[in-house]
Formats: sequence, C-alpha cells, structure tokens
Amino acid sequence: MIILIQCVDQVGLVAAVSKVTANAGLNIISMREYVNIDANRFYLRLEVADENFEPAFVKTALEKVLPENSSIGIATGTKKKIVVLVTKEYHCLGDILLRNYFNTLGASVACVIGNHETLRGLTEKFDIPFHFIDHTDISKEYFEETLMQTLSNYSFDYIVLAKFMRILSPGFVAVFPYRIINIHHSFLPAFIGANPYRQAHERGVKLIGATAHFVTDTLDEGPIIAQQIIPVNHAHSVKDMVTLGKEVEEAVLAKALQLVLQDRVIVDKNKTVVFEN
Amino acid sequence: MIILIQCVDQVGLVAAVSKVTANAGLNIISMREYVNIDANRFYLRLEVADENFEPAFVKTALEKVLPENSSIGIATGTKKKIVVLVTKEYHCLGDILLRNYFNTLGASVACVIGNHETLRGLTEKFDIPFHFIDHTDISKEYFEETLMQTLSNYSFDYIVLAKFMRILSPGFVAVFPYRIINIHHSFLPAFIGANPYRQAHERGVKLIGATAHFVTDTLDEGPIIAQQIIPVNHAHSVKDMVTLGKEVEEAVLAKALQLVLQDRVIVDKNKTVVFEN
Amino acid sequence: MIILIQCVDQVGLVAAVSKVTANAGLNIISMREYVNIDANRFYLRLEVADENFEPAFVKTALEKVLPENSSIGIATGTKKKIVVLVTKEYHCLGDILLRNYFNTLGASVACVIGNHETLRGLTEKFDIPFHFIDHTDISKEYFEETLMQTLSNYSFDYIVLAKFMRILSPGFVAVFPYRIINIHHSFLPAFIGANPYRQAHERGVKLIGATAHFVTDTLDEGPIIAQQIIPVNHAHSVKDMVTLGKEVEEAVLAKALQLVLQDRVIVDKNKTVVFEN
Amino acid sequence: MIILIQCVDQVGLVAAVSKVTANAGLNIISMREYVNIDANRFYLRLEVADENFEPAFVKTALEKVLPENSSIGIATGTKKKIVVLVTKEYHCLGDILLRNYFNTLGASVACVIGNHETLRGLTEKFDIPFHFIDHTDISKEYFEETLMQTLSNYSFDYIVLAKFMRILSPGFVAVFPYRIINIHHSFLPAFIGANPYRQAHERGVKLIGATAHFVTDTLDEGPIIAQQIIPVNHAHSVKDMVTLGKEVEEAVLAKALQLVLQDRVIVDKNKTVVFEN
Repeated sequence: MIILIQCVDQVGLVAAVSKVTANAGLNIISMREYVNIDANRFYLRLEVADENFEPAFVKTALEKVLPENSSIGIATGTKKKIVVLVTKEYHCLGDILLRNYFNTLGASVACVIGNHETLRGLTEKFDIPFHFIDHTDISKEYFEETLMQTLSNYSFDYIVLAKFMRILSPGFVAVFPYRIINIHHSFLPAFIGANPYRQAHERGVKLIGATAHFVTDTLDEGPIIAQQIIPVNHAHSVKDMVTLGKEVEEAVLAKALQLVLQDRVIVDKNKTVVFEN
Repeated sequence: MIILIQCVDQVGLVAAVSKVTANAGLNIISMREYVNIDANRFYLRLEVADENFEPAFVKTALEKVLPENSSIGIATGTKKKIVVLVTKEYHCLGDILLRNYFNTLGASVACVIGNHETLRGLTEKFDIPFHFIDHTDISKEYFEETLMQTLSNYSFDYIVLAKFMRILSPGFVAVFPYRIINIHHSFLPAFIGANPYRQAHERGVKLIGATAHFVTDTLDEGPIIAQQIIPVNHAHSVKDMVTLGKEVEEAVLAKALQLVLQDRVIVDKNKTVVFEN
Repeated sequence: MIILIQCVDQVGLVAAVSKVTANAGLNIISMREYVNIDANRFYLRLEVADENFEPAFVKTALEKVLPENSSIGIATGTKKKIVVLVTKEYHCLGDILLRNYFNTLGASVACVIGNHETLRGLTEKFDIPFHFIDHTDISKEYFEETLMQTLSNYSFDYIVLAKFMRILSPGFVAVFPYRIINIHHSFLPAFIGANPYRQAHERGVKLIGATAHFVTDTLDEGPIIAQQIIPVNHAHSVKDMVTLGKEVEEAVLAKALQLVLQDRVIVDKNKTVVFEN
Repeated sequence: MIILIQCVDQVGLVAAVSKVTANAGLNIISMREYVNIDANRFYLRLEVADENFEPAFVKTALEKVLPENSSIGIATGTKKKIVVLVTKEYHCLGDILLRNYFNTLGASVACVIGNHETLRGLTEKFDIPFHFIDHTDISKEYFEETLMQTLSNYSFDYIVLAKFMRILSPGFVAVFPYRIINIHHSFLPAFIGANPYRQAHERGVKLIGATAHFVTDTLDEGPIIAQQIIPVNHAHSVKDMVTLGKEVEEAVLAKALQLVLQDRVIVDKNKTVVFEN
C-alpha cells in the first residue's frame, strides 16, 4: 500500500502519520519526506506492507491527525489503466504495447486512439482496440467531442499522449486534471512549440532532449515529471536529431510513466515532487 | 542538526523517532528512511531545525526508544576537519584546497602530507602545512609509523587519499575505521590494482570511470561512496585516458566528500547507504 | 557507398585514396581517419555519393594504391540481414522487431531462434519465422549442430544474441568471425560471467551497465562496440537492478546494431575502431 | 602542426589537400572532415607530424589548390595566451589558475581582470597580474575603454569570461571576433539572461546545465562550443542549484577551452564545427 500526503507543514506530522501506521501494525518499507520551507508545504510518500487492510480505514485515521485541506492518496495493488493517444510515430506506442503485453508496464492499456490510421496495425497485433478519429475537415471542437465520446466507453486513470501531435483545448484538459501525460520532444523550456529539433539545429546546440510533463491549459507549461538529454554535434542534420531524439523521447516517457504508475509523483501547482527509488 | 540511525528493523521505529523530535518541538526539515528487507536493517537520516538543543539529550531520548545495539550519530554544525594525503598529481588536491580557501568544502583542511615534495608549493600557497614523508629506502612499517606521528599532531575526522599512490597496511587502516576515503582511478570492481587506465586501454572499453570509497583492509574493496564514468573511444591513448580520467576522479572525490561531510552516508559492512538530496 | 579501409600506415594513404575517388568524380560526404601510431595501423571510413558506380571497380582501384594485405570493405545500399537468438527476455527482441517492422533497423530480420518457446508469440505477431531449439537433455554439440542447420536455411550478415543465455562453443563462433554480436548485462570487464547484477549488488556499486561486443572464443572477451551505464543506489534490490538494467541493455544493443549496420565499426584484433557521427 | 580549413565544397578537396601534405612528406596523424551538404560547405582538420616545416609554405601550397575565399588556419606548437575576466565567483578562475600553474591548460594566463577585488588574492597566489576595474559610478563606455586600455598591455589569443557578470557592448565584442569565450549558467537557449537558476527553479525542471559559447553582439546567442547538464529534483532550492551548477559551469568551460586551445573548433556564422577526439 502506498500513501501520498500533501499538506501545510507543521511540527509532528511524521510522528502523527507513523503513529497511525504503527498502531495498525503496518511496517514501513520505505518513507520519503520533503518539506518546501519557503512554501511551508509538507509532502510524504509511505510504502507499507499491506496485509488485509482497508484503505478507507487508513485514510480516515490519517484525516484525523493531519491538518485541514490535506491531500491524501492511497494506492493499493489494483492495476491502473491508461488510454494512449497517438499520431503517426510508433516508437513510444511500441514501447508501451510491448511492456503491456509482457506485464511490465505497471498498468494495462485500455485502448489506443489515433488521429491517423498509421498505428492501427501495430496496435491490433497486440489485441488492443484502436480508434481512428480523423481531425481533417472538422473543427477542433467536434474532434474533441468525438474523442470524449470514445473515451467515455473506457475507464482509465491516465491519458498518455505518446507523440500525439494535436494540441488539446483548455476545456478538454480541464476534464482530466493532472491525468494527461505528454512527451514533448525538447528539453523544456527550450524550444517550446513546433519543430523543436529544427529550432535546436538552427541554434547549433550540443545536446537535445525530451520532457515528460502533465498537460495543463498552457502549451508545454505543465508540471515536469522527467527530462533527459543526448549529445549531438555539428554533423547531425535535423533528420538525424529527429531519429536520435526518438530514443530519448521513448526513454523519458517510459520513465515518467513508471514514476506516475508507481505513485512516486505528487503534483503541486506547476511543479512535481518526485520520490525516486 | 542531522541524526543518522542504523539498527535492526521493527514496526514503529519511525513513529518512535519522530515522537522524540516532535516532543522536543523540533521540526523535521527532511527525512530519508531505508529498510533492507532481506537483512532486516533500518537506516534513517533526519535533518531537524536545531535551535538551542543538546545533542546528548536527543541521543539519550533516542536510545530509550530504539532497539539495542542501534548506531546513533548526531552531527551538529561544528565544522569537520580533514587531512589530505597525496603523491604527485595535483588535480584532486587543488580542487580541495580551492574549496577550503573559499569555505565551500564543508570541512577545513588541517594539513597535507605527501610522499613526494611535488605538491608542497601548491599547498603552502594556501597557508596549509605540508609534511613530506619520504618512502624511499625505508620499510612500509617505518613509513607508516612516521605518518602516524605526523597525524598525531592534528585532530581530524577523515583522512582523504587524494591520489596517494601507496597502499596502506591493514594495521594502519584499522586505526581509522571508515574514516579513510580513497579515490580509485577505475570503475571498480573493474581494473583493480595498478595501472587501471592501461588495463582499460588494452581491453578497448568505451567508458572509463572513477570510484570513491572508504578504505578497508582489502585493496580497493571498501564500501563505495560514489562512482562516475566518462566516454572514451579508440582514439584515446593511455595518456589521453589518464588526462580525461583526472576530470572524473576530481569530480567523484568532490562528490563523495560532500556526501560524507554532509552526513549523508551510513556504512554497513562493505556497503554504503547514501541519502542524496 | 561506404568504404572501410584498414592497413599498415604510411605517408600518402589519404592522398592515394582520395585521388581514386576524385578521379572517379565521387564527392566525399564524410571521411573519418584514425592512425594508431603505436601499432602503425591506418583506419579509414569514407562515405561517398554513389551514382552508378561499380564497387568492384572502386575496390580494384584502391587495391592498386594501398599497401599489401590491406583490408578493404565496400558497402552499398543493399539492406543487411540479421538472425536473432533469444532465450526468455523480450526487451531486446521487442525493440528489434519494432524497428524491423517500421523499417528503421537498418537491416531486416531473417528469423528468430529461441532455446525457449517464450518469445514465439511476440515474434510471430510480426510475421517473422520463429524456430525453437530445445537445449535440454541434449549435448551442446548436438544443440549447435541443430542451430547450424537452422541457420543454413537463411542468408544473413550478422547473428544477434539478444539476451541469448547459452554460451556458444569456440568451434561455433569460429564459423562467424566478428559476425556474432552479444549484449552482456554488465559493464565489462566488471562482472564477467553469470549473475552480474547479483555480483554488482553484493559489491554495492553505484552504477550498473551493459556492453555490446562481438563474440570471440573467450567468454565476454570479444571486441567491445558500445557500453553504457545507469546510476543505482543502496535501495535497488537485485531485482530492481535487473529491471533497470534491461533499459540499458536494450539501448546499448540498439546503438551497437546501428553502428555495425551503418558500417561504422572496424575490428582489429580484440578492439574496435568506431567512427560515430 | 594542425591545419583547419573551411571553404565551399567541391569534388577533390581532400585529394588536393592530402596531395600537398604527401608531397611534403608529412604523415597525417589524424584527419576529420565534415561536409554540410545543405550549405555546400567543407570543413577539415588535419593533424600532421611537423618536423622542420614552414607553416607559411604549407599555407601557400594549400591556397593554390583550394577554392577562393577559403579560410586556412595553421597552428604550430606555440603556446596560446588568454586573458581571464571575472567578477566574484572563484570556481572557473580557480580551475584555470590550477591548470595554468601545472602546465595542463594548453595556454598561459596573461592576466586576470576583475570588476570586483574579490579574486585578487587567489590570482596573486599564482603570480598572475590582477587588474581591478571598478564598474560602479561610471558609464559602460568608460568601463570598456579602461578595459581596452588594460588589455592593450598584453598580447593574447582569447578573452575568457569566467563568470564575468557584465554584458559587453557590441562595439567591444566586435574588436575580438570569435575570440571571446563565455560560460553561461544555463542550458541555452533555455533561460537566457539573468538569474537562470531562479528561472529553472520556478519552472521545476529536472535538469540544469551550462553552455560555453563564443560571444557575439547578441546576448547569449553566440556559437555554442560545449554544453552539459546535471540532474536536479524538487528538493533543490535555488541556492542548491547555484551550488550544483558551479560544478557544471567549471567542467563545461574547461572542456570548451580545451577544444578551442587544441584547435578543434571551426566557427561558421552562428554555429561551431567541433572535431572532438
């Protein structure tokens, strides 16, 4: 059982929480705590051995000892579900489908939705439903309505934008707060927006990168979950950078998904607290 | 105030410890806990705001609630002291002397001891005493006796082997358990012993590295504190590797010293638990 | 067209080679040269624009101007073929099959051979033939004989051991000199042999790695093509290291395959000269 | 002897150049060539064994065979000289002074100029002249005039801005085209301008970096020589990032200086071609 807590900081919080778990006879396997002193915020991740224990009971017990307006999340072993949105590029989706097929994703893929048909073949090889929603000749409004309708047939915890190249409207995003994860093909905040590799090439940078972040209503401005880079040099054309970049994009998205699916990420406003191993 | 605890694991340890700090009105700034389930060992690092508080009092309070044979370390703001042993290479010593001079080392350098005169000039520029102990034409026994005598004039917390190219005898090492820090110029356990860069070159590796570790009585086998690597290729001669390697050696030793001096390292047998930021 | 040359060094080699290409009106797109001064060896990789040109003609012209016993390789655009050997782990094979399916591998997969049935399903999803060769209850001799027979039905340039957990005999290896590529799950030469992650865990290292190398008749001693590492800490169990290590293994093998398939690797005895971009 | 060539591309350039060196009996130790196909530009770095050879003679011979407007640079073993400009931070200057003192910089430091007195003590320890030019209460114009006057007393190849926190005017920069090297404390083009670490902290990035670049008349827009990054997390305050960042700044500037001083960098407009080992 994993417990994620976020609240205003005060003396005795760890004592209070650990008393709750100790009273319940739960052994703490791992504990990570962080206090943002400037903001007076307290963050805690607790992993406890969970034999026959009611999450609701633990939550109630915690609510009694924590400050008002605390955010308390309790994750049990139930497998999470994700929906994946794609356009044409296969690398991130392929990685997700492979991990899903071999049960190493830490979630199950409910369906894949594409605004192109390109990745239907790959998806259906793995017996995952693929929905094509054409965006041509229709308004963004209508596109998102259709998307919403398709989504309504599935239950899921997160929407993963695995190189989905359409920008979702603030209205759509607002329906899934901190539940949409995007992989952006640059080292944000460098090269916001379109064609980051072309921008990087023109600037002559010596490193390119990728950023996985939660989607908020401001383009490429959501809380960052993970970032990584790869060295490049003068000899890399834009096309070479695109190719190389895919390796980083895939790796960063995989890492971000792992962090989120293992309940290691707490979001606070436009930032994340990430308790890595 | 930083509290480091190591003991046998049992339910309620965090609750017990945090009750002690809460009762004392101490706010926990950061807390890192790790349980080695296989070995049933519990490790804790606590950083608390320490206004007018007696370490001895905290220690006694903790001893009452922790299992027998617990190891409890309490570090207050007192600046630590180190002695540096060198041979001829300047890069690690230079870095330490610079940080010491500008008060960013997190310790103060009591003195430098060399088995060559080479680095006297550099050391004395920074008004640090330099002692030359010649190892030629004398037995290792006599060398270490002289070394011990020189050390006896200083009080210090750690001995740092900053590219000190003599092997210290188990007898000498035993006097300073987990208090001697060495930088080895390879990615241990690859290339143990002499001339690791020559070994690396002959093997044709594509990465070379460095390892900072506590010294124990078995050569290059002590608990590892930090490691890092740097890419190389076919075009790097042994000499190039030596040059490149120095950058890593300096960086790894600097990092290891920071970790140790900030009380982020707990040693248990031949391993370290390192609570990084 | 890519030209790879390896020969004894002497004055005027580049002039001689580039005169041949200039006379033929071929523009040099990229050129990489390396001289091992100690060994007096010359290595060259030339990429030229190849319109309507006979490799045989170029080779003959080069032979006339190069020293005796020069090794001259000329690669045209013909797609290379590989055979993949596997055991049970899917990550490296999955990555190869995805790239193969989307034509980004730089080779085509002729077939997959497993000493377990585990990966048949995945392989056949991508319409690649899968051959199961059981190793239980038979001699290594007979196993390799069957393997050789299976291989004889395919034409291929390289055999890729994508986490194939059987050791091939020197006799078998000798049939395919520098044509078998293995991914070893450690940062060679550290942790040669079995269970490298267990060895790494016991030693308490702070980095784990993977090594892609050509297979020779000495275990894990073949010329290294690529290596990479990933940081670990005290909290990573052996199982965590295995999981993390898979990410590096997949990445390193992918990189090594790219280097080899793009004719960027020249092997000389137990080392490689790798001309990266 | 190192030869750097930059010109319009055409068939036969390598042949022509290598014929010149072969005719002169010069052995090519290493050769790196790059053709920017889109821009039709040719770049070459040649390292030749140079016994008793007149650079002027080689240059004339090359001019005869290369296209008009070719840029030909010939570096012999003469040690380069640098002037270092600083403000208050010691880490980059300290590293440069150490390397200079032990003859591993690949250049000699002619003098250090500071707009604060802070680093006089450190500089003079190493017997290097330190000039203090106060910028308070005077115009930028007058400041740069004084700076120019001080510089006029020295001969030097490069001006190194080792955390010099004043912006030089386009007029000043124009006097030293591609001869001023700056270390910027961010991963450009992210966080241009002031307080990049504060900006990085507010954005919640997971990596921070540093960039060494030639200074041109547009702020932080000059050709990039080297970049590197270091991971950070939520627990790093702005102050922690500043501290960590210094390690990267020092490493990146050291690397950039090495590349430039070993004549491995060719500048073309706003980009560099860097021929690393």
